Amino acid sequence: MSTSSSQDPLPSKFGVLVFPAFQALDAFGPLDAFNNLADKHKMDLAIIAKTLEPVSTKYRDPAMNPFGSNFGESIVPTHDFITAPPLDVLLIPGGLGTRADEELESLYEFVRKTYPSLKYILTVCTGSRIAARAGILDGKRATTNKNSFEKVKAVGPNVKWVSHARWVVDGNVWTSSGVSAGTDMALAWIEEVFGKEMAEEISRVMEYERHLDPNDDPFADLYNLPREG
Amino acid sequence: MSTSSSQDPLPSKFGVLVFPAFQALDAFGPLDAFNNLADKHKMDLAIIAKTLEPVSTKYRDPAMNPFGSNFGESIVPTHDFITAPPLDVLLIPGGLGTRADEELESLYEFVRKTYPSLKYILTVCTGSRIAARAGILDGKRATTNKNSFEKVKAVGPNVKWVSHARWVVDGNVWTSSGVSAGTDMALAWIEEVFGKEMAEEISRVMEYERHLDPNDDPFADLYNLPREG
Repeated sequence: MSTSSSQDPLPSKFGVLVFPAFQALDAFGPLDAFNNLADKHKMDLAIIAKTLEPVSTKYRDPAMNPFGSNFGESIVPTHDFITAPPLDVLLIPGGLGTRADEELESLYEFVRKTYPSLKYILTVCTGSRIAARAGILDGKRATTNKNSFEKVKAVGPNVKWVSHARWVVDGNVWTSSGVSAGTDMALAWIEEVFGKEMAEEISRVMEYERHLDPNDDPFADLYNLPREG
Repeated sequence: MSTSSSQDPLPSKFGVLVFPAFQALDAFGPLDAFNNLADKHKMDLAIIAKTLEPVSTKYRDPAMNPFGSNFGESIVPTHDFITAPPLDVLLIPGGLGTRADEELESLYEFVRKTYPSLKYILTVCTGSRIAARAGILDGKRATTNKNSFEKVKAVGPNVKWVSHARWVVDGNVWTSSGVSAGTDMALAWIEEVFGKEMAEEISRVMEYERHLDPNDDPFADLYNLPREG
């Protein structure tokens, strides 16, 4: 499973992609683990979006908001797709906003263009839909949100989708199941790259009891997903 | 433990307090549970800060950032302490920024002034330090981050601090242990107020395996905290 050599410098240049109606915890679970890691290592974060306008978690389609709630949070990008700095690690959250193919075309292009120079790409939940649309999951094993599994699978016919997994690692591509699974994946990634002690220290600071087994996925069965043949 | 009557309308007006160097997941764990709840009920969120400038999770004290990282996220307030709307529920995250007493004086005053009209107040992690400073925990049972337990205890000498608890409920005051514990508390609060089925549905959507027992706290022992006499 190891993808890094001890000669390589540790990854320090992180980026996260945000887009309208991203799922807050998909981003902020992993990001808060990385926030803690940045106390122990020199790390920079670029928050990357189509423009520098704040990006909200709110749905823009009224059909998604049947009770007319005015509920969501906006995050401030630091870079757009043109000004984004070189990155070692790119994190892609999911959310209902991942379905807006037309809106996301330039974001897919950014992922496609950026992937070859990354050390790692991490997707959470339906963030793997974005990676699939960008074409970088073709031929690779990957997972996604279990409630949206069949829908995401349909947009990546050449991806080896894994139904029963909290997260999946294939080379430098890490994909997690829905929302909270991203935090487990981020901590497993920290363990892989920065060591077990660091992952355990950050889990302790976050008072987080990790799921340690990537294959233990209680939610696949809950959604009655079939296992791969 | 029930604090609501079935005659009461369900709480719909939510607020979250943010301040420099708040802990991202303290806020976004509960908020993302509430984001999901807002798909099922009419709910509004006010993001409240001293000013309408974006509020960053970054430390402002260079001593807190020994490696010179440039790593953090900024959230956009919707209201300041003057323009904040009437609220049913106020969520207060923690973080190292809770130690900035001088900076937070007007925030303490806001909590003090707002508490009597709230249906519920929820604090996560060292957010209980803010509630203690505002004086609203006096005589009440409460908990906080386990790594900072003794420090927070010292600022609330009239609070009945509970060392071994994932979260504590005393009347309409809900306080949780560190970071991730806030998500468990938020889902327990949803169960209490919106029903068990709703809490389970939201946990399923978040692919989150809840800690269901507020008294089961693996982190208190990890930090060798004594039990109350």
